[in-house]
Amino acid sequence: MRILGIDPGIAIVGFGFIDKEGSKCTPVQYGCIETKAHTPEEDRLLYVYEGMVQLIEKYKPDAVALEKLFFNRNVTTAMTVAQARGVLVLAAVQKGLPVAEYTPMQVKQAIVGYGKAEKRQVQEMTRMFLKLKAIPKPDDVADALAIAICHAHSYTLNSKLNEVLRS
Amino acid sequence: MRILGIDPGIAIVGFGFIDKEGSKCTPVQYGCIETKAHTPEEDRLLYVYEGMVQLIEKYKPDAVALEKLFFNRNVTTAMTVAQARGVLVLAAVQKGLPVAEYTPMQVKQAIVGYGKAEKRQVQEMTRMFLKLKAIPKPDDVADALAIAICHAHSYTLNSKLNEVLRS
Repeated sequence: MRILGIDPGIAIVGFGFIDKEGSKCTPVQYGCIETKAHTPEEDRLLYVYEGMVQLIEKYKPDAVALEKLFFNRNVTTAMTVAQARGVLVLAAVQKGLPVAEYTPMQVKQAIVGYGKAEKRQVQEMTRMFLKLKAIPKPDDVADALAIAICHAHSYTLNSKLNEVLRS
Repeated sequence: MRILGIDPGIAIVGFGFIDKEGSKCTPVQYGCIETKAHTPEEDRLLYVYEGMVQLIEKYKPDAVALEKLFFNRNVTTAMTVAQARGVLVLAAVQKGLPVAEYTPMQVKQAIVGYGKAEKRQVQEMTRMFLKLKAIPKPDDVADALAIAICHAHSYTLNSKLNEVLRS
């Protein structure tokens, strides 16, 4: 199955497509959608939405995972990100894709095995897990890949749990 | 010109279309899009978006006005509203409509002439201004109409200012 991880934002949207086969994950494509500062907010929302629609149509994921809405220290930033998150979720649900959400703690737990791991540790484990030569830049891209891996792990766990419950 | 005022939300989206001719405003259509509680957030976002697209296609406004993103006491609510606002702004900008934003204080100033007016005063003035028999319910609908009137007023003021500057 192909998973799309998204790190929402209005200036930079990180994305990462990975293929999960058994317990193995391989990167398919990753990068970011960037919008220009000093352009009207509504144009940036449109750009982010259209960019994500194109990516979904090109790489055809089976599922989408994003970070849960959470309270940022900077409330204005948090609300601007929430607006962008709205149009990104819309792009996914319009294509009939299931949308999963994880808290930053769940992502850290899944990648490093410790919910309070440092950002750098998460990035390094993400790099190793996907056998990448370097940590993808900017951080938003590495974060998006980490969310995709987190979803792959929890998907595997849920499948195994269902098998046990069925047997 | 026809103005669409929107009061964004995830459970209830208030909308109000008004026609502005000179300094006169007449109501065209108003109401709300409601989504069911206990349904997945992504489905509610899709419903809100599709409902707004249909309304825009049916009533063909020339401009859209919304309340500015602002910090609510309840941050979780504020961010959920921001997500919905994102897809509503998207619906407008996809149709090439200009999007205007006003703070609650600007709306009160425009309707009552006093930025700290009470909600009830704003609603009563909105009712009188549009020659309605009763204040539209729920509050979200009255709020949406107030935002539309606010835009009509500031549009008139800006036009007059431009005339003066040109002469």
